[in-house]
Amino acid sequence: MSESSLSSRKKRRSPRNLGAGDKRERILDAAVRVFAQSGFHATRVSDVAKAAGVADGTIYLYFESKDELLRSLFEDRVGRLLAFVQEGLAKHETAKAKLSAIIELQLGVYEGEPELAEVMTVILRQSTKLLKEHARPGFMAYLDAIATIVAAGQKNGEFRSDASPHFVARSLFGAIDGIALTWALGKAERGGLSRAATQVAELFLHGLLP
Amino acid sequence: MSESSLSSRKKRRSPRNLGAGDKRERILDAAVRVFAQSGFHATRVSDVAKAAGVADGTIYLYFESKDELLRSLFEDRVGRLLAFVQEGLAKHETAKAKLSAIIELQLGVYEGEPELAEVMTVILRQSTKLLKEHARPGFMAYLDAIATIVAAGQKNGEFRSDASPHFVARSLFGAIDGIALTWALGKAERGGLSRAATQVAELFLHGLLP
Repeated sequence: MSESSLSSRKKRRSPRNLGAGDKRERILDAAVRVFAQSGFHATRVSDVAKAAGVADGTIYLYFESKDELLRSLFEDRVGRLLAFVQEGLAKHETAKAKLSAIIELQLGVYEGEPELAEVMTVILRQSTKLLKEHARPGFMAYLDAIATIVAAGQKNGEFRSDASPHFVARSLFGAIDGIALTWALGKAERGGLSRAATQVAELFLHGLLP
Repeated sequence: MSESSLSSRKKRRSPRNLGAGDKRERILDAAVRVFAQSGFHATRVSDVAKAAGVADGTIYLYFESKDELLRSLFEDRVGRLLAFVQEGLAKHETAKAKLSAIIELQLGVYEGEPELAEVMTVILRQSTKLLKEHARPGFMAYLDAIATIVAAGQKNGEFRSDASPHFVARSLFGAIDGIALTWALGKAERGGLSRAATQVAELFLHGLLP
């Protein structure tokens, strides 16, 4: 922890150059836990530092502020989710199979990480600024990916053509988000997400039949 | 504004006894606007007082804290939405018509009040405590109302019987919430909610066909 000192708070160095990427990762992992436990506004940067096992100043080597920590967390996790989904999609041929895969993949990621589900469905909305200014590009990229699949399915006759791909995408994202939200808040039965994935997939695929 | 003074902050009187229900209403209406504009955490009680045209102390005659203000706002608006939905549902016979009506009613309320849509979809989640402890009963009552309609439609053969009414309810609520969220944040086209309502209704009703 030799690089950690509050004096480095203003002079940020690039963490990549320090060869300490795993420390950045450790901070992000700790942030998921702490944000999920205390909420964004009640969390202090020092709480995250403690949970990550680093000095307070270390966090400022990687993230300028608590806002930037949450933003980086979102970008990192959405980036991973997008990559994971793209990889998963490549294995499927039909639009139906691709759509089912997206639902399973998104709920599957949450199933393994309930705290991440809470951060993504609840905590993220605790920063209106973040949501409006920063979350939009990643969110839109994700919606576009879904809309593209729906449009392809309409073109090849798998889906009915009178549904707007973008409305379907937003409805589907909302449905998944709503299910993950109730589940993450511990009100829905634990372990129920894969069953939920099957039900949501059936409902939407059925709804899109010509 | 004779009852308004900071000294009344601790000694709360029942506003109903003061016969000043319209002032409470004015404060709630102002809170919707201010919360939507600044977010929950950045809002000070004095900002709401200013927007409502009352002295700071007046707010404390009606609401103990900013948390209670948000909670009361949620309870009041969900109560109204539930009453509005129940009234609307009574006009329809079939489960299909009732489900379409719920979607139209919920999105219709938001269409008339974009700031309310933002408070309900975003700001409400800015208080994790509120969401976990207080929002649950109203939210669950709303989901139960939807699930009951789905179950009735399954019983009379309108809907396929292999879908879980509660999953359908959560998916549908999530879909509506997701559409209202993107719309309220000003990214979706204005005036598009009634078109969205038709699309969501078609998607879900189609999805529930036997």
